[in-house]
Amino acid sequence: MRIDGALLERRLDELYAIGAEPGGGSFRPLYSDAWATAVDRVERWLKDAGLKTRRDAVGNLWGRAEGTDKGKSIVTGSHIDTVRHGGRLDGALGIVAGLTAVESLLKDKGKPKRTLEVVAICEEEGSRFATNFWGSRAVIGAIETVDPDMAAAMRERGLDPASVASAARDDIDTFVELHIEQGAVLESARAPLAVVSAIVGTAHLEVTVTGRPDHAGTTPMGLRLDALAGAAAMVHAIESIAKSLGKPAVATVGKLAVEPDQINVVPGTVVFTVDLRHSDLGGRRALEERIRSVCATTSQERRLGLAIRTMQEKPPVAMDPDVRALLARAAKECGVQSTQMVSGAGHDAQILAARCRVGMLFVPSLGGRSHCPEEHTDPAHLELGGRVLVRALDLLAY
Amino acid sequence: MRIDGALLERRLDELYAIGAEPGGGSFRPLYSDAWATAVDRVERWLKDAGLKTRRDAVGNLWGRAEGTDKGKSIVTGSHIDTVRHGGRLDGALGIVAGLTAVESLLKDKGKPKRTLEVVAICEEEGSRFATNFWGSRAVIGAIETVDPDMAAAMRERGLDPASVASAARDDIDTFVELHIEQGAVLESARAPLAVVSAIVGTAHLEVTVTGRPDHAGTTPMGLRLDALAGAAAMVHAIESIAKSLGKPAVATVGKLAVEPDQINVVPGTVVFTVDLRHSDLGGRRALEERIRSVCATTSQERRLGLAIRTMQEKPPVAMDPDVRALLARAAKECGVQSTQMVSGAGHDAQILAARCRVGMLFVPSLGGRSHCPEEHTDPAHLELGGRVLVRALDLLAY
Repeated sequence: MRIDGALLERRLDELYAIGAEPGGGSFRPLYSDAWATAVDRVERWLKDAGLKTRRDAVGNLWGRAEGTDKGKSIVTGSHIDTVRHGGRLDGALGIVAGLTAVESLLKDKGKPKRTLEVVAICEEEGSRFATNFWGSRAVIGAIETVDPDMAAAMRERGLDPASVASAARDDIDTFVELHIEQGAVLESARAPLAVVSAIVGTAHLEVTVTGRPDHAGTTPMGLRLDALAGAAAMVHAIESIAKSLGKPAVATVGKLAVEPDQINVVPGTVVFTVDLRHSDLGGRRALEERIRSVCATTSQERRLGLAIRTMQEKPPVAMDPDVRALLARAAKECGVQSTQMVSGAGHDAQILAARCRVGMLFVPSLGGRSHCPEEHTDPAHLELGGRVLVRALDLLAY
Repeated sequence: MRIDGALLERRLDELYAIGAEPGGGSFRPLYSDAWATAVDRVERWLKDAGLKTRRDAVGNLWGRAEGTDKGKSIVTGSHIDTVRHGGRLDGALGIVAGLTAVESLLKDKGKPKRTLEVVAICEEEGSRFATNFWGSRAVIGAIETVDPDMAAAMRERGLDPASVASAARDDIDTFVELHIEQGAVLESARAPLAVVSAIVGTAHLEVTVTGRPDHAGTTPMGLRLDALAGAAAMVHAIESIAKSLGKPAVATVGKLAVEPDQINVVPGTVVFTVDLRHSDLGGRRALEERIRSVCATTSQERRLGLAIRTMQEKPPVAMDPDVRALLARAAKECGVQSTQMVSGAGHDAQILAARCRVGMLFVPSLGGRSHCPEEHTDPAHLELGGRVLVRALDLLAY
């Protein structure tokens, strides 16, 4: 069973051209013109492949090949929206590889036993509205309110915000997604393909360190309550903690703001964020506990004020063990020994896991780059990912 | 010889009310309406005290009591401009105490032997234009160009930018300034008065640390080039270096900016400033050298890019030994054992030192606070400072 690598590349190029930005990359935010053009393009491809298409209440696009047996569907796909200056592969690969794989199966093997579906999920990135996983959350029936801006944008696309609940499905058996890794783990290990074992749990903390703004010239070192010196000690310790806990623990201080931020004033207040992730809930909690503890100790030693606020908390999601095994088998049958890895980024699969079995395949990202125009994967790896996806869908649906 | 403490307080209140801001404090930026009103008020006081007044080409206000002997002048005073939300004493004290002291001397002892002058220096703070020490730099003839914004503001006040050079003077023998400490050294030591030994030298560095922006979830700790983690290690080390060198070395990281400053992106670039000061040029250079060295080592260890730019460099300025001795004697004769200290902040005296003997007296700042509405000095300390100033001018001019 093969996949047409050239066709895959061509379709990725076509999608990438939709929403192309002057500064490089593409931008297809939810419900924008570029987004709508891209959804139309994918719908045409789905129809050309012989699939029956429909849009649900939030604008997810589904292409369906009815199975000969009754029962829940086997679904593959990914999200069609992008971040600003987004790359060519994030989301797009899962859709294009999914439809090209299903097209190939239908052509070679005809009608499947299990119903096979390809989905272009309307939104995952959170680049336009204060939401993310909008499409997959609609599929699992998890959307309770639609904010007014979002509702207005939906109406502009002919969608009715009042009928969002109708997008929910309970007839999906398995969701399989091919995605780029978006990191450099596979590249570093010279591995062409991974079966994802889990998607990390993420906590976002906001840490506020309060000292006293003093004149940088007239205040001796010993009389200072320097919020930035304290925060620097914390940032340094947070990195050490994540390193010492080992993979897959990661902790990142990504944002940091200083008040009053003047060259000759000792910083009075520093606010910084911590993004911390682990594939195991216990591991993530241990990481968070140690970070909270080191911040508390540092602030006490330095007589600084400390406030830590949890901004977001998402538990880790394990991929289904049977689907993982099936994906590994598909890889092996394609002549590849797949590796296993934890996804450090979030994906629609982690949302859909609430209603169905989920599994994911990763192909390497050049230099680990993603969410930028430099996002790239070796064409041989893209084709390999597509081939393994074909084999997996074959095993699942035929 | 006494000074009228109540009059001192009343005049400080009057000046503080000029430029009062809704958020607290006063703001009298150079050549503003509030600034002009304050200069007019001081001129009236000078005239009432029997001094002959004149404005020079940049707007410095001089009040002169001709001496019976020929020779250079004895001058006292300070700057009349303020920072935004400035306090009641910074600059204002030196002017008000100076004119009240001279008024008192003229009343009690009549015409001085040496010509006595009080100056309200037009600008020191740099709160409006990209300049500071504007007034004192004009007095030493150090202004070479006037930028167009500044020139326009001068013309609005009837001043001619082309005649700035005429403000230069070479007929000043001694400049003595009473100022608040703006730090908490005197308060901590329970000392009511200090004779300043030197004004620190200041260097401002801008440090740019370059790493690589990566996804906070997908990039393991070991594959990161985290500019903020590196910068945090540097900030931490800079504090340690200044502490280990001991007083009067101080180093402050006051500004820090992160790029791209996103919660889920490993920081790619960090730019921070270092303000470093020492009363001894060798000491300041040693401090800077150690800071540069630790930044270089840290960036090499972490494979980060590093660029350090010197934004400003001012050498330390020693106060005149004879004037210091005279100020200490004046204090002793007022019944106070003065302490000696280094000024961590800059003052007009450090500029005027290029053309005349200079000396400064400090009185304590409550909690070390300055450049804010909370700026405060015990009235007894203000009066003491005024009394010592009277005695010093007496010794110098009679």
